[in-house]
Amino acid sequence: MLDQLFNPSVQHVIDLVGIFVFAISGALLAVRKNFDVFGIAVLAEVTALGGGLLRDLIIGAVPPAAFSDLGYFLTPLLAALLVFFLHPEVERIQVGANIFDAAGLGLFCVAGTVRAYDYGLGLTSSAALGLATAVGGGVLRDVLANEVPSLLRWDRDLYAVPAIVGATMVALCIRYDVLNAFTSGLAVVTAFVLRLLAMRYHWRAPRAWHRRSTAIEVPE
Amino acid sequence: MLDQLFNPSVQHVIDLVGIFVFAISGALLAVRKNFDVFGIAVLAEVTALGGGLLRDLIIGAVPPAAFSDLGYFLTPLLAALLVFFLHPEVERIQVGANIFDAAGLGLFCVAGTVRAYDYGLGLTSSAALGLATAVGGGVLRDVLANEVPSLLRWDRDLYAVPAIVGATMVALCIRYDVLNAFTSGLAVVTAFVLRLLAMRYHWRAPRAWHRRSTAIEVPE
Amino acid sequence: MLDQLFNPSVQHVIDLVGIFVFAISGALLAVRKNFDVFGIAVLAEVTALGGGLLRDLIIGAVPPAAFSDLGYFLTPLLAALLVFFLHPEVERIQVGANIFDAAGLGLFCVAGTVRAYDYGLGLTSSAALGLATAVGGGVLRDVLANEVPSLLRWDRDLYAVPAIVGATMVALCIRYDVLNAFTSGLAVVTAFVLRLLAMRYHWRAPRAWHRRSTAIEVPE
Repeated sequence: MLDQLFNPSVQHVIDLVGIFVFAISGALLAVRKNFDVFGIAVLAEVTALGGGLLRDLIIGAVPPAAFSDLGYFLTPLLAALLVFFLHPEVERIQVGANIFDAAGLGLFCVAGTVRAYDYGLGLTSSAALGLATAVGGGVLRDVLANEVPSLLRWDRDLYAVPAIVGATMVALCIRYDVLNAFTSGLAVVTAFVLRLLAMRYHWRAPRAWHRRSTAIEVPE
Repeated sequence: MLDQLFNPSVQHVIDLVGIFVFAISGALLAVRKNFDVFGIAVLAEVTALGGGLLRDLIIGAVPPAAFSDLGYFLTPLLAALLVFFLHPEVERIQVGANIFDAAGLGLFCVAGTVRAYDYGLGLTSSAALGLATAVGGGVLRDVLANEVPSLLRWDRDLYAVPAIVGATMVALCIRYDVLNAFTSGLAVVTAFVLRLLAMRYHWRAPRAWHRRSTAIEVPE
Repeated sequence: MLDQLFNPSVQHVIDLVGIFVFAISGALLAVRKNFDVFGIAVLAEVTALGGGLLRDLIIGAVPPAAFSDLGYFLTPLLAALLVFFLHPEVERIQVGANIFDAAGLGLFCVAGTVRAYDYGLGLTSSAALGLATAVGGGVLRDVLANEVPSLLRWDRDLYAVPAIVGATMVALCIRYDVLNAFTSGLAVVTAFVLRLLAMRYHWRAPRAWHRRSTAIEVPE
């Protein structure tokens, strides 16, 4: 069972940590958009659970983990509560939040790929779903907040690439039958570090060829 | 069978009424956004059936009721047709529409919770899905119309709370084994009346702590 | 087996062509919105596969074709690559792209209806899902790009009607047991030609009654 790479309770704690940090990012956006306390809770839930929910619907794992494990449901509410009362403090430690978010990205792209493969998908599809798990919650968050998903914008630091690298590493490990706690941990760390470097050095992806020099920007 | 709380044909009529009133709200927004007749029909369908569709996908009830019962599909088209020809009259009776919408909210939060529990979900998850059933269609409506979901906005009267109360009452009734036509009807009425009171007295949920006094609003 | 109307490999090629042309339209919008290369790829994938994915989730065909066939996944990436390097040329042949998009619309509304009926849905629901297959990807594309879906806007040439006609023709053929390669091909061509005529003569759908003369437009 690939799903049992880690001790189950260790895996569970890792999942909850990933959910928590993603929920924080959703709740902070809700505060910035001036939503009320329920808007904050909804955006925290959607950001934290949206990617995994999408993945579970696609692989046919119903009811999704988000609805069969109470901890998955309550963790984002806790994050929303923290942000509700402490948001100036939470924003001040935004750098810390970004580091946690990067950790969530690494964890989710690996866990998503493994879970999709466990449900019988091919390697490429599994890696694609790993990516969707990692970035899906953030996209739903931005759509609900009526903003262009930051995943798609050229003026944001690389977000997809670290997740793609992590998911691809897992797929290759499965392909060559060397997936274990060490190699999957390595994939998590690689995605995590790549994201940290992308933020530190403002790595960006190119826009369409010949467009880079255009002065006219699409207003948003 | 919890699903058979009411006489099936009574339940069916109740569902169709809820679908109809939600469809009216979707069609009216489409007219306000200047959509064409197909846009009106699409927004009516999505608003009326979106919440239940989401719930059915999550609990694994495929094909969802929205696609297995012709009445569910045709009712929003009827609502769209009415709004298309009579929208000034329909808008004039907006107060009436709001009352119907509140009734839909009450009905859907209860029916959604019961159905989710019937499919084997836990009590908390069932109540969460009841809430999602009640508010999901409206969120999809606002996303398609490219607006910030009114569910999330602080400057709208309470919408989630009545549905949360109704869904929680059902979950508690199931927990203590006292769910019957009377208690579930009571939950519907409670959610309905709470929503009416929220509209009458403009009850609002608080925004994040220390934010209430800020003069700067996020432009939308 | 309705699904085997055509030689399977012929059907597969047809699907890939439809996916390719829809992906081009997604990638072009991404360039216009100034997204980076990953945004272009994501929007190409979502536009090309979104409608079919939605349909497969609703009929319970998991994992959806989009994730079980590698060609379905790679074709949009190829389209994204082409647009990335050649977008001025691709935009110049926008007329050509529109013709391909119309072909995709015709193919998808027919294939979607057949597939939904194969999974046991009723005729009306099958036609509705055929329509959703044909237009769903474009709606998701516009939602992710934070625009009002062009499907809903009154100032765009008819898009839904050709797909409705094609899907309805297929449903009627199934009803009267005359669905074969010829009649379904006829449905594809009818939808295709109707869309071309709608673009050529700027056919539009009416807005709500009595609204046509209002000078005040909702700003978007």
